[in-house]
Amino acid sequence: MLLLTLLDTLGTFAFAVSGALKAVRRGMDLFGLTVLAVVTAIGGGTIRDVMLGRQPFWFHDSSYILLSLAAALIVFGLYRVVTRGETLLLWFDAVGLGAFTVIGATKAMDAGLGAVGTIVLAIIRDLLAGDVPVVLRKEVYASACIIGAALFWYLARWHVSQAISMPVAMLVVIVIRLLSLHYHVGLPRAPVPAEPPQEP
Amino acid sequence: MLLLTLLDTLGTFAFAVSGALKAVRRGMDLFGLTVLAVVTAIGGGTIRDVMLGRQPFWFHDSSYILLSLAAALIVFGLYRVVTRGETLLLWFDAVGLGAFTVIGATKAMDAGLGAVGTIVLAIIRDLLAGDVPVVLRKEVYASACIIGAALFWYLARWHVSQAISMPVAMLVVIVIRLLSLHYHVGLPRAPVPAEPPQEP
Amino acid sequence: MLLLTLLDTLGTFAFAVSGALKAVRRGMDLFGLTVLAVVTAIGGGTIRDVMLGRQPFWFHDSSYILLSLAAALIVFGLYRVVTRGETLLLWFDAVGLGAFTVIGATKAMDAGLGAVGTIVLAIIRDLLAGDVPVVLRKEVYASACIIGAALFWYLARWHVSQAISMPVAMLVVIVIRLLSLHYHVGLPRAPVPAEPPQEP
Repeated sequence: MLLLTLLDTLGTFAFAVSGALKAVRRGMDLFGLTVLAVVTAIGGGTIRDVMLGRQPFWFHDSSYILLSLAAALIVFGLYRVVTRGETLLLWFDAVGLGAFTVIGATKAMDAGLGAVGTIVLAIIRDLLAGDVPVVLRKEVYASACIIGAALFWYLARWHVSQAISMPVAMLVVIVIRLLSLHYHVGLPRAPVPAEPPQEP
Repeated sequence: MLLLTLLDTLGTFAFAVSGALKAVRRGMDLFGLTVLAVVTAIGGGTIRDVMLGRQPFWFHDSSYILLSLAAALIVFGLYRVVTRGETLLLWFDAVGLGAFTVIGATKAMDAGLGAVGTIVLAIIRDLLAGDVPVVLRKEVYASACIIGAALFWYLARWHVSQAISMPVAMLVVIVIRLLSLHYHVGLPRAPVPAEPPQEP
Repeated sequence: MLLLTLLDTLGTFAFAVSGALKAVRRGMDLFGLTVLAVVTAIGGGTIRDVMLGRQPFWFHDSSYILLSLAAALIVFGLYRVVTRGETLLLWFDAVGLGAFTVIGATKAMDAGLGAVGTIVLAIIRDLLAGDVPVVLRKEVYASACIIGAALFWYLARWHVSQAISMPVAMLVVIVIRLLSLHYHVGLPRAPVPAEPPQEP
Protein backbone atom coordinates (compact mmCIF):
# COMPACT_ATOMS: atom_id res chain seq x y z
CA MET A 1 0.00 0.00 0.00
CA LEU A 2 1.67 3.16 -1.24
CA LEU A 3 0.30 5.49 1.45
CA LEU A 4 1.56 3.16 4.21
CA THR A 5 5.04 3.03 2.67
CA LEU A 6 5.18 6.81 2.39
CA LEU A 7 4.12 7.43 6.00
CA ASP A 8 6.44 4.66 7.22
CA THR A 9 9.34 6.38 5.43
CA LEU A 10 8.54 9.81 6.87
CA GLY A 11 8.17 8.35 10.37
CA THR A 12 11.43 6.41 10.16
CA PHE A 13 13.20 9.58 9.04
CA ALA A 14 11.65 11.58 11.90
CA PHE A 15 12.66 8.95 14.47
CA ALA A 16 16.22 8.84 13.13
CA VAL A 17 16.52 12.63 13.17
CA SER A 18 15.22 12.80 16.74
CA GLY A 19 17.81 10.23 17.83
CA ALA A 20 20.57 12.15 16.07
CA LEU A 21 19.52 15.46 17.65
CA LYS A 22 19.67 13.85 21.08
CA ALA A 23 23.20 12.62 20.32
CA VAL A 24 24.37 16.11 19.35
CA ARG A 25 22.98 17.53 22.60
CA ARG A 26 24.88 14.88 24.54
CA GLY A 27 28.14 15.80 22.83
CA MET A 28 28.59 12.44 21.08
CA ASP A 29 30.92 12.01 18.10
CA LEU A 30 29.78 11.20 14.55
CA PHE A 31 29.70 7.47 15.26
CA GLY A 32 27.64 7.78 18.44
CA LEU A 33 25.26 10.08 16.60
CA THR A 34 24.85 7.56 13.79
CA VAL A 35 24.24 4.67 16.18
CA LEU A 36 21.64 6.58 18.16
CA ALA A 37 19.88 7.63 14.94
CA VAL A 38 19.72 4.03 13.69
CA VAL A 39 18.69 2.57 17.06
CA THR A 40 15.93 5.14 17.53
CA ALA A 41 14.60 4.45 14.03
CA ILE A 42 14.67 0.65 14.03
CA GLY A 43 15.14 -0.47 17.67
CA GLY A 44 11.52 -0.76 18.75
CA GLY A 45 10.39 -2.43 15.53
CA THR A 46 13.24 -4.92 15.84
CA ILE A 47 12.12 -5.94 19.33
CA ARG A 48 8.53 -6.29 18.10
CA ASP A 49 9.57 -8.54 15.21
CA VAL A 50 11.83 -10.70 17.39
CA MET A 51 9.02 -11.22 19.90
CA LEU A 52 6.81 -12.37 17.03
CA GLY A 53 9.48 -14.89 15.97
CA ARG A 54 10.09 -12.98 12.73
CA GLN A 55 13.35 -11.69 11.31
CA PRO A 56 13.70 -7.93 11.93
CA PHE A 57 12.07 -5.87 9.18
CA TRP A 58 15.37 -4.32 8.06
CA PHE A 59 17.19 -7.66 7.49
CA HIS A 60 16.18 -7.93 3.86
CA ASP A 61 15.41 -4.27 3.11
CA SER A 62 18.43 -2.12 3.83
CA SER A 63 16.55 1.10 2.97
CA TYR A 64 15.64 1.60 6.66
CA ILE A 65 19.29 1.58 7.72
CA LEU A 66 20.38 3.73 4.79
CA LEU A 67 17.58 6.23 5.45
CA SER A 68 18.67 6.45 9.09
CA LEU A 69 22.28 6.99 8.04
CA ALA A 70 21.16 9.79 5.73
CA ALA A 71 19.22 11.39 8.59
CA ALA A 72 22.30 11.17 10.81
CA LEU A 73 24.51 12.86 8.22
CA ILE A 74 21.94 15.60 7.62
CA VAL A 75 21.74 16.37 11.33
CA PHE A 76 25.53 16.26 11.64
CA GLY A 77 26.05 18.66 8.73
CA LEU A 78 23.01 20.90 9.08
CA TYR A 79 22.26 20.93 12.81
CA ARG A 80 20.89 24.49 12.93
CA VAL A 81 18.75 24.08 9.84
CA VAL A 82 17.23 20.87 11.18
CA THR A 83 16.37 22.29 14.60
CA ARG A 84 14.62 25.21 12.92
CA GLY A 85 12.37 22.69 11.16
CA GLU A 86 11.29 20.94 14.36
CA THR A 87 7.58 21.56 13.71
CA LEU A 88 7.87 19.72 10.38
CA LEU A 89 9.60 16.85 12.22
CA LEU A 90 6.71 16.61 14.69
CA TRP A 91 4.37 16.25 11.70
CA PHE A 92 6.56 13.52 10.20
CA ASP A 93 6.67 11.86 13.61
CA ALA A 94 2.89 11.95 13.91
CA VAL A 95 2.26 10.41 10.49
CA GLY A 96 4.96 7.84 11.27
CA LEU A 97 3.11 6.89 14.44
CA GLY A 98 0.02 6.18 12.40
CA ALA A 99 1.94 3.94 10.03
CA PHE A 100 3.90 2.16 12.78
CA THR A 101 0.70 1.42 14.71
CA VAL A 102 -1.05 -0.14 11.74
CA ILE A 103 2.03 -2.12 10.67
CA GLY A 104 2.51 -3.47 14.20
CA ALA A 105 -1.16 -4.34 14.62
CA THR A 106 -1.24 -6.17 11.28
CA LYS A 107 1.81 -8.27 12.20
CA ALA A 108 0.38 -9.11 15.64
CA MET A 109 -2.97 -10.17 14.15
CA ASP A 110 -1.20 -12.29 11.53
CA ALA A 111 0.39 -14.14 14.47
CA GLY A 112 -3.07 -14.83 15.91
CA LEU A 113 -2.91 -12.47 18.89
CA GLY A 114 -6.02 -11.19 20.61
CA ALA A 115 -6.97 -7.55 21.27
CA VAL A 116 -4.67 -7.04 24.28
CA GLY A 117 -1.61 -8.58 22.62
CA THR A 118 -2.29 -6.69 19.38
CA ILE A 119 -2.43 -3.36 21.17
CA VAL A 120 0.76 -4.05 23.12
CA LEU A 121 2.67 -5.04 19.99
CA ALA A 122 1.31 -2.08 18.04
CA ILE A 123 2.73 0.44 20.49
CA ILE A 124 6.11 -1.18 21.19
CA ARG A 125 7.86 0.57 18.32
CA ASP A 126 6.82 3.96 19.64
CA LEU A 127 7.42 3.18 23.30
CA LEU A 128 10.93 1.93 22.74
CA ALA A 129 12.09 4.72 20.46
CA GLY A 130 15.32 5.52 22.19
CA ASP A 131 14.45 7.62 25.19
CA VAL A 132 11.51 6.11 27.09
CA PRO A 133 11.51 8.52 30.02
CA VAL A 134 10.93 11.51 27.77
CA VAL A 135 8.11 9.75 25.96
CA LEU A 136 6.51 8.68 29.22
CA ARG A 137 6.47 12.15 30.71
CA LYS A 138 5.21 13.91 27.60
CA GLU A 139 1.87 14.26 25.91
CA VAL A 140 -0.69 11.57 25.19
CA TYR A 141 1.79 9.99 22.82
CA ALA A 142 1.13 6.29 23.06
CA SER A 143 -2.52 6.75 23.98
CA ALA A 144 -3.06 7.73 20.33
CA CYS A 145 -1.47 4.45 19.20
CA ILE A 146 -3.52 2.43 21.65
CA ILE A 147 -6.77 3.89 20.39
CA GLY A 148 -5.70 3.39 16.77
CA ALA A 149 -4.63 -0.21 17.38
CA ALA A 150 -7.83 -1.04 19.27
CA LEU A 151 -9.91 0.46 16.46
CA PHE A 152 -7.94 -1.46 13.82
CA TRP A 153 -8.39 -4.72 15.70
CA TYR A 154 -12.10 -4.07 16.13
CA LEU A 155 -12.63 -3.25 12.44
CA ALA A 156 -10.78 -6.43 11.45
CA ARG A 157 -13.01 -8.47 13.72
CA TRP A 158 -16.02 -7.13 11.83
CA HIS A 159 -14.33 -8.10 8.56
CA VAL A 160 -13.83 -4.54 7.37
CA SER A 161 -11.38 -4.59 4.45
CA GLN A 162 -7.83 -3.42 5.24
CA ALA A 163 -8.17 -0.99 2.33
CA ILE A 164 -10.57 0.88 4.62
CA SER A 165 -9.40 0.02 8.15
CA MET A 166 -5.73 0.88 7.53
CA PRO A 167 -6.19 4.51 6.44
CA VAL A 168 -8.93 5.03 9.02
CA ALA A 169 -6.82 3.77 11.94
CA MET A 170 -3.76 5.70 10.74
CA LEU A 171 -5.80 8.89 10.42
CA VAL A 172 -7.18 8.48 13.95
CA VAL A 173 -3.68 8.11 15.41
CA ILE A 174 -2.34 11.08 13.46
CA VAL A 175 -5.24 13.37 14.35
CA ILE A 176 -5.14 12.51 18.07
CA ARG A 177 -1.38 13.02 18.13
CA LEU A 178 -1.53 16.39 16.37
CA LEU A 179 -4.43 17.59 18.53
CA SER A 180 -2.59 16.59 21.72
CA LEU A 181 0.51 18.43 20.49
CA HIS A 182 -1.53 21.51 19.65
CA TYR A 183 -3.46 21.67 22.92
CA HIS A 184 -0.68 20.25 25.15
CA VAL A 185 -3.07 17.66 26.55
CA GLY A 186 -1.62 15.49 29.31
CA LEU A 187 -2.66 12.60 31.51
CA PRO A 188 -3.22 12.94 35.27
CA ARG A 189 -0.50 12.13 37.79
CA ALA A 190 -0.86 10.31 41.09
CA PRO A 191 -0.43 12.68 44.03
CA VAL A 192 3.29 12.71 44.75
CA PRO A 193 4.09 11.51 48.28
CA ALA A 194 5.22 14.15 50.77
CA GLU A 195 8.13 12.09 52.11
CA PRO A 196 11.47 12.25 50.21
CA PRO A 197 11.76 9.70 47.36
CA GLN A 198 13.01 6.28 48.47
CA GLU A 199 13.25 2.96 46.71
CA PRO A 200 11.04 0.10 47.99
CA MET B 1 -0.64 -27.16 38.75
CA LEU B 2 -2.92 -25.00 40.86
CA LEU B 3 -0.31 -23.93 43.43
CA LEU B 4 2.08 -22.79 40.69
CA THR B 5 -0.66 -20.70 39.05
CA LEU B 6 -1.59 -19.10 42.34
CA LEU B 7 2.00 -18.15 43.24
CA ASP B 8 2.65 -16.98 39.68
CA THR B 9 -0.37 -14.67 39.93
CA LEU B 10 0.67 -13.24 43.29
CA GLY B 11 4.22 -12.69 42.04
CA THR B 12 3.08 -11.00 38.83
CA PHE B 13 0.86 -8.70 40.86
CA ALA B 14 3.72 -7.86 43.25
CA PHE B 15 6.10 -7.11 40.36
CA ALA B 16 3.50 -4.86 38.68
CA VAL B 17 2.81 -2.98 41.92
CA SER B 18 6.52 -2.45 42.53
CA GLY B 19 6.91 -1.02 39.01
CA ALA B 20 3.92 1.28 39.52
CA LEU B 21 5.22 2.52 42.87
CA LYS B 22 8.52 3.39 41.25
CA ALA B 23 6.66 5.37 38.56
CA VAL B 24 4.74 7.40 41.16
CA ARG B 25 7.98 8.28 42.95
CA ARG B 26 9.44 9.49 39.65
CA GLY B 27 6.45 11.76 39.02
CA MET B 28 5.25 9.91 35.90
CA ASP B 29 1.71 10.33 34.56
CA LEU B 30 -0.91 7.56 34.50
CA PHE B 31 0.36 6.21 31.21
CA GLY B 32 3.99 6.04 32.30
CA LEU B 33 2.91 4.34 35.50
CA THR B 34 0.94 1.74 33.55
CA VAL B 35 3.82 1.04 31.18
CA LEU B 36 6.31 0.62 34.01
CA ALA B 37 3.91 -1.72 35.86
CA VAL B 38 3.44 -3.91 32.78
CA VAL B 39 7.13 -3.93 31.84
CA THR B 40 8.22 -4.84 35.37
CA ALA B 41 5.70 -7.69 35.49
CA ILE B 42 6.29 -9.26 32.06
CA GLY B 43 9.58 -7.83 30.74
CA GLY B 44 12.01 -10.39 32.11
CA GLY B 45 9.82 -13.38 31.26
CA THR B 46 9.41 -12.04 27.73
CA ILE B 47 13.17 -11.89 27.22
CA ARG B 48 13.52 -15.42 28.61
CA ASP B 49 10.87 -16.79 26.22
CA VAL B 50 12.31 -14.97 23.20
CA MET B 51 15.77 -16.39 23.94
CA LEU B 52 14.22 -19.85 24.01
CA GLY B 53 12.63 -19.25 20.61
CA ARG B 54 9.16 -19.32 22.14
CA GLN B 55 6.38 -16.78 21.84
CA PRO B 56 6.18 -14.62 25.01
CA PHE B 57 3.99 -16.20 27.69
CA TRP B 58 1.43 -13.37 27.57
CA PHE B 59 0.74 -13.61 23.81
CA HIS B 60 -2.10 -16.06 24.17
CA ASP B 61 -3.08 -15.41 27.79
CA SER B 62 -3.98 -11.76 28.29
CA SER B 63 -4.55 -12.23 32.03
CA TYR B 64 -0.93 -11.20 32.76
CA ILE B 65 -1.39 -7.84 31.03
CA LEU B 66 -4.83 -7.28 32.55
CA LEU B 67 -3.56 -8.15 36.03
CA SER B 68 -0.71 -5.65 35.59
CA LEU B 69 -3.16 -2.98 34.43
CA ALA B 70 -5.28 -3.64 37.52
CA ALA B 71 -2.21 -3.31 39.75
CA ALA B 72 -1.36 0.01 38.04
CA LEU B 73 -4.84 1.41 38.61
CA ILE B 74 -4.84 0.27 42.25
CA VAL B 75 -1.53 2.02 42.89
CA PHE B 76 -2.72 5.13 41.05
CA GLY B 77 -5.94 5.35 43.04
CA LEU B 78 -4.80 4.01 46.41
CA TYR B 79 -1.15 5.01 46.65
CA ARG B 80 -1.09 5.51 50.43
CA VAL B 81 -2.97 2.31 51.16
CA VAL B 82 -0.64 0.29 48.96
CA THR B 83 2.57 1.65 50.48
CA ARG B 84 1.24 0.81 53.93
CA GLY B 85 0.95 -2.85 52.81
CA GLU B 86 4.54 -3.10 51.61
CA THR B 87 5.31 -6.07 53.89
CA LEU B 88 2.49 -8.03 52.26
CA LEU B 89 3.95 -7.11 48.86
CA LEU B 90 7.34 -8.49 49.88
CA TRP B 91 5.61 -11.78 50.72
CA PHE B 92 3.83 -11.83 47.36
CA ASP B 93 7.16 -11.02 45.72
CA ALA B 94 8.89 -13.88 47.54
CA VAL B 95 6.29 -16.48 46.57
CA GLY B 96 6.35 -15.10 43.03
CA LEU B 97 10.11 -15.65 42.92
CA GLY B 98 9.57 -19.30 43.78
CA ALA B 99 7.05 -19.71 40.97
CA PHE B 100 9.09 -17.75 38.40
CA THR B 101 12.19 -19.81 39.14
CA VAL B 102 10.44 -23.14 38.66
CA ILE B 103 8.61 -21.97 35.51
CA GLY B 104 11.84 -20.69 33.98
CA ALA B 105 13.79 -23.82 34.88
CA THR B 106 11.10 -26.07 33.41
CA LYS B 107 11.09 -24.15 30.11
CA ALA B 108 14.89 -24.20 29.91
CA MET B 109 15.04 -27.94 30.54
CA ASP B 110 12.32 -28.56 27.94
CA ALA B 111 14.66 -26.82 25.48
CA GLY B 112 17.43 -29.27 26.40
CA LEU B 113 19.70 -26.89 28.29
CA GLY B 114 22.27 -28.11 30.83
CA ALA B 115 22.62 -27.02 34.44
CA VAL B 116 24.37 -23.70 33.73
CA GLY B 117 21.92 -22.63 31.04
CA THR B 118 18.94 -23.72 33.14
CA ILE B 119 20.07 -21.65 36.10
CA VAL B 120 20.72 -18.58 33.96
CA LEU B 121 17.30 -18.78 32.31
CA ALA B 122 15.56 -19.44 35.63
CA ILE B 123 16.83 -16.19 37.14
CA ILE B 124 16.39 -13.90 34.12
CA ARG B 125 12.82 -12.94 34.98
CA ASP B 126 13.86 -11.76 38.42
CA LEU B 127 17.06 -10.09 37.32
CA LEU B 128 15.40 -8.04 34.62
CA ALA B 129 12.42 -6.88 36.64
CA GLY B 130 12.59 -3.23 35.81
CA ASP B 131 15.32 -1.78 37.97
CA VAL B 132 18.39 -3.99 37.90
CA PRO B 133 20.71 -1.74 39.93
CA VAL B 134 18.40 -1.85 42.96
CA VAL B 135 18.12 -5.63 42.74
CA LEU B 136 21.87 -6.00 42.42
CA ARG B 137 22.67 -3.91 45.47
CA LYS B 138 20.05 -5.48 47.73
CA GLU B 139 19.78 -8.71 49.65
CA VAL B 140 20.55 -12.20 48.42
CA TYR B 141 17.70 -11.86 45.98
CA ALA B 142 18.79 -13.88 42.97
CA SER B 143 20.96 -16.22 45.02
CA ALA B 144 17.72 -17.77 46.25
CA CYS B 145 16.62 -18.38 42.66
CA ILE B 146 19.97 -19.86 41.72
CA ILE B 147 19.84 -22.36 44.57
CA GLY B 148 16.22 -23.25 43.74
CA ALA B 149 16.96 -23.67 40.03
CA ALA B 150 20.06 -25.79 40.71
CA LEU B 151 18.06 -28.00 43.09
CA PHE B 152 15.22 -28.34 40.57
CA TRP B 153 17.63 -29.31 37.81
CA TYR B 154 19.36 -31.82 40.08
CA LEU B 155 16.09 -33.45 41.18
CA ALA B 156 14.99 -33.74 37.55
CA ARG B 157 18.26 -35.44 36.68
CA TRP B 158 17.49 -38.07 39.31
CA HIS B 159 14.02 -38.53 37.80
CA VAL B 160 12.17 -37.10 40.76
CA SER B 161 8.57 -36.38 39.71
CA GLN B 162 7.72 -32.71 39.10
CA ALA B 163 4.82 -33.14 41.52
CA ILE B 164 7.51 -33.29 44.19
CA SER B 165 10.41 -31.25 42.77
CA MET B 166 8.28 -28.21 41.87
CA PRO B 167 6.87 -27.47 45.34
CA VAL B 168 10.18 -28.36 46.98
CA ALA B 169 12.21 -26.00 44.77
CA MET B 170 9.62 -23.24 45.14
CA LEU B 171 9.60 -23.62 48.89
CA VAL B 172 13.40 -23.41 49.05
CA VAL B 173 13.43 -20.17 47.05
CA ILE B 174 10.66 -18.63 49.15
CA VAL B 175 12.22 -19.59 52.48
CA ILE B 176 15.68 -18.32 51.54
CA ARG B 177 14.18 -15.08 50.27
CA LEU B 178 12.11 -14.49 53.39
CA LEU B 179 14.98 -15.38 55.71
CA SER B 180 17.33 -13.00 53.86
CA LEU B 181 14.70 -10.25 54.12
CA HIS B 182 14.23 -10.92 57.83
CA TYR B 183 17.90 -11.03 58.73
CA HIS B 184 19.10 -8.47 56.11
CA VAL B 185 21.72 -10.93 54.86
CA GLY B 186 24.03 -9.57 52.18
CA LEU B 187 26.91 -10.71 50.03
CA PRO B 188 30.49 -9.46 50.43
CA ARG B 189 31.85 -6.56 48.40
CA ALA B 190 35.27 -6.24 46.82
CA PRO B 191 37.42 -3.65 48.63
CA VAL B 192 36.58 -0.36 46.92
CA PRO B 193 39.65 1.29 45.37
CA ALA B 194 41.00 4.39 47.10
CA GLU B 195 41.43 6.40 43.88
CA PRO B 196 38.37 8.34 42.60
CA PRO B 197 36.08 6.31 40.30
CA GLN B 198 37.17 6.32 36.66
CA GLU B 199 36.01 4.37 33.64
CA PRO B 200 38.51 1.93 32.03
CA MET C 1 39.26 -22.84 13.41
CA LEU C 2 41.70 -22.87 16.30
CA LEU C 3 42.85 -19.25 15.99
CA LEU C 4 39.23 -18.02 16.02
CA THR C 5 38.45 -20.03 19.16
CA LEU C 6 41.54 -18.70 20.91
CA LEU C 7 40.80 -15.04 20.12
CA ASP C 8 37.12 -15.54 20.98
CA THR C 9 38.18 -16.89 24.39
CA LEU C 10 40.56 -14.00 25.09
CA GLY C 11 37.93 -11.47 24.01
CA THR C 12 35.20 -13.03 26.15
CA PHE C 13 37.55 -12.97 29.14
CA ALA C 14 38.44 -9.31 28.50
CA PHE C 15 34.76 -8.32 28.20
CA ALA C 16 33.90 -10.17 31.43
CA VAL C 17 36.78 -8.56 33.31
CA SER C 18 35.80 -5.10 32.10
CA GLY C 19 32.22 -5.67 33.32
CA ALA C 20 33.48 -6.88 36.69
CA LEU C 21 35.80 -3.89 37.09
CA LYS C 22 32.88 -1.56 36.44
CA ALA C 23 30.86 -3.36 39.13
CA VAL C 24 33.62 -2.95 41.71
CA ARG C 25 33.83 0.77 40.96
CA ARG C 26 30.08 1.07 41.49
CA GLY C 27 30.31 -0.63 44.89
CA MET C 28 28.25 -3.69 43.89
CA ASP C 29 28.34 -6.92 45.91
CA LEU C 30 29.77 -10.21 44.63
CA PHE C 31 26.51 -11.14 42.95
CA GLY C 32 26.12 -7.85 41.12
CA LEU C 33 29.73 -8.09 40.02
CA THR C 34 29.16 -11.59 38.65
CA VAL C 35 26.00 -10.59 36.80
CA LEU C 36 27.66 -7.58 35.20
CA ALA C 37 30.65 -9.70 34.16
CA VAL C 38 28.42 -12.32 32.52
CA VAL C 39 26.12 -9.77 30.86
CA THR C 40 29.05 -7.79 29.45
CA ALA C 41 30.61 -10.96 28.06
CA ILE C 42 27.55 -12.60 26.49
CA GLY C 43 24.81 -9.92 26.32
CA GLY C 44 25.53 -8.48 22.89
CA GLY C 45 26.11 -11.85 21.25
CA THR C 46 22.85 -13.12 22.75
CA ILE C 47 20.89 -10.25 21.20
CA ARG C 48 22.59 -10.89 17.85
CA ASP C 49 21.70 -14.59 17.92
CA VAL C 50 18.10 -13.95 18.97
CA MET C 51 17.65 -11.48 16.12
CA LEU C 52 18.90 -14.15 13.74
CA GLY C 53 16.34 -16.60 15.12
CA ARG C 54 19.10 -18.78 16.58
CA GLN C 55 19.48 -20.03 20.12
CA PRO C 56 22.07 -17.94 22.01
CA PHE C 57 25.60 -19.24 21.52
CA TRP C 58 26.03 -20.14 25.21
CA PHE C 59 22.93 -22.37 25.42
CA HIS C 60 24.75 -25.54 24.52
CA ASP C 61 28.32 -24.53 25.41
CA SER C 62 28.53 -23.48 29.04
CA SER C 63 32.21 -22.55 28.75
CA TYR C 64 31.30 -18.91 28.00
CA ILE C 65 29.37 -18.59 31.26
CA LEU C 66 31.99 -20.46 33.26
CA LEU C 67 34.80 -18.34 31.78
CA SER C 68 32.87 -15.19 32.74
CA LEU C 69 32.35 -16.51 36.28
CA ALA C 70 36.08 -17.18 36.54
CA ALA C 71 36.84 -13.63 35.37
CA ALA C 72 34.42 -12.27 37.99
CA LEU C 73 36.08 -14.23 40.78
CA ILE C 74 39.55 -13.16 39.66
CA VAL C 75 38.55 -9.50 39.70
CA PHE C 76 36.84 -9.93 43.06
CA GLY C 77 39.86 -11.57 44.65
CA LEU C 78 42.68 -9.79 42.84
CA TYR C 79 41.29 -6.34 42.07
CA ARG C 80 44.59 -4.48 42.35
CA VAL C 81 46.53 -7.03 40.32
CA VAL C 82 43.94 -6.94 37.53
CA THR C 83 43.86 -3.14 37.26
CA ARG C 84 47.63 -3.10 36.99
CA GLY C 85 47.31 -5.35 33.92
CA GLU C 86 44.88 -3.07 32.10
CA THR C 87 47.13 -2.74 29.04
CA LEU C 88 47.09 -6.52 28.63
CA LEU C 89 43.28 -6.43 28.89
CA LEU C 90 43.10 -3.84 26.10
CA TRP C 91 45.09 -6.25 23.93
CA PHE C 92 42.76 -9.13 24.80
CA ASP C 93 39.84 -6.83 24.06
CA ALA C 94 41.27 -5.87 20.67
CA VAL C 95 41.85 -9.46 19.55
CA GLY C 96 38.39 -10.34 20.88
CA LEU C 97 36.91 -7.60 18.69
CA GLY C 98 38.49 -9.20 15.66
CA ALA C 99 37.04 -12.60 16.53
CA PHE C 100 33.57 -11.25 17.44
CA THR C 101 33.38 -9.30 14.17
CA VAL C 102 34.19 -12.30 12.01
CA ILE C 103 31.88 -14.61 13.99
CA GLY C 104 28.99 -12.16 13.73
CA ALA C 105 29.56 -11.53 10.03
CA THR C 106 29.67 -15.26 9.30
CA LYS C 107 26.36 -15.86 11.10
CA ALA C 108 24.70 -12.93 9.34
CA MET C 109 25.84 -14.13 5.92
CA ASP C 110 24.66 -17.67 6.69
CA ALA C 111 21.22 -16.12 7.24
CA GLY C 112 21.38 -14.56 3.79
CA LEU C 113 21.81 -10.94 4.82
CA GLY C 114 23.27 -8.32 2.49
CA ALA C 115 26.23 -6.03 3.17
CA VAL C 116 24.35 -3.53 5.35
CA GLY C 117 22.69 -6.18 7.53
CA THR C 118 25.95 -8.12 7.84
CA ILE C 119 27.84 -5.08 9.06
CA VAL C 120 25.13 -4.17 11.57
CA LEU C 121 25.03 -7.71 13.00
CA ALA C 122 28.82 -7.96 13.10
CA ILE C 123 29.14 -4.92 15.37
CA ILE C 124 26.19 -5.59 17.72
CA ARG C 125 28.21 -7.67 20.15
CA ASP C 126 30.72 -4.88 20.62
CA LEU C 127 28.19 -2.07 20.69
CA LEU C 128 26.06 -3.68 23.35
CA ALA C 129 28.89 -4.72 25.66
CA GLY C 130 27.45 -3.39 28.88
CA ASP C 131 28.09 0.31 28.84
CA VAL C 132 27.16 1.83 25.49
CA PRO C 133 27.70 5.50 26.38
CA VAL C 134 31.35 4.91 27.24
CA VAL C 135 31.90 3.01 24.03
CA LEU C 136 30.19 5.69 21.98
CA ARG C 137 32.29 8.52 23.37
CA LYS C 138 35.61 6.72 23.13
CA GLU C 139 37.98 5.94 20.33
CA VAL C 140 37.16 4.57 16.90
CA TYR C 141 36.03 1.36 18.56
CA ALA C 142 33.22 0.10 16.35
CA SER C 143 34.62 1.75 13.22
CA ALA C 144 37.27 -0.97 13.28
CA CYS C 145 34.55 -3.65 13.34
CA ILE C 146 32.63 -1.99 10.53
CA ILE C 147 35.69 -1.93 8.28
CA GLY C 148 36.50 -5.55 9.15
CA ALA C 149 32.94 -6.73 8.55
CA ALA C 150 32.67 -4.87 5.25
CA LEU C 151 35.98 -6.36 4.11
CA PHE C 152 34.90 -9.86 5.16
CA TRP C 153 31.61 -9.51 3.28
CA TYR C 154 33.39 -8.22 0.21
CA LEU C 155 35.97 -11.05 0.20
CA ALA C 156 33.15 -13.62 0.57
CA ARG C 157 31.36 -12.08 -2.40
CA TRP C 158 34.48 -12.67 -4.49
CA HIS C 159 34.55 -16.28 -3.28
CA VAL C 160 37.74 -15.90 -1.27
CA SER C 161 38.08 -18.92 1.02
CA GLN C 162 37.25 -18.33 4.68
CA ALA C 163 40.65 -19.80 5.53
CA ILE C 164 42.02 -16.56 4.10
CA SER C 165 39.26 -14.00 4.66
CA MET C 166 38.78 -14.82 8.37
CA PRO C 167 42.34 -14.14 9.55
CA VAL C 168 42.66 -11.15 7.19
CA ALA C 169 39.48 -9.47 8.46
CA MET C 170 40.37 -10.23 12.09
CA LEU C 171 43.84 -8.81 11.62
CA VAL C 172 42.45 -5.61 10.09
CA VAL C 173 40.09 -5.08 13.04
CA ILE C 174 42.82 -5.75 15.59
CA VAL C 175 45.38 -3.48 13.92
CA ILE C 176 42.93 -0.57 13.52
CA ARG C 177 41.84 -0.96 17.12
CA LEU C 178 45.38 -1.04 18.49
CA LEU C 179 46.48 1.89 16.31
CA SER C 180 43.50 3.99 17.44
CA LEU C 181 44.31 3.14 21.07
CA HIS C 182 47.95 4.07 20.57
CA TYR C 183 47.31 7.37 18.78
CA HIS C 184 44.05 8.27 20.58
CA VAL C 185 42.31 8.81 17.26
CA GLY C 186 38.73 10.08 17.54
CA LEU C 187 35.85 11.00 15.27
CA PRO C 188 34.62 14.56 14.75
CA ARG C 189 31.73 16.02 16.76
CA ALA C 190 28.90 18.22 15.53
CA PRO C 191 29.25 21.81 16.80
CA VAL C 192 27.45 21.86 20.15
CA PRO C 193 24.55 24.35 20.17
CA ALA C 194 25.04 27.56 22.18
CA GLU C 195 21.57 27.43 23.79
CA PRO C 196 21.14 25.31 26.97
CA PRO C 197 20.32 21.63 26.27
CA GLN C 198 16.61 20.93 25.87
CA GLU C 199 14.69 17.87 24.75
CA PRO C 200 12.67 18.09 21.51
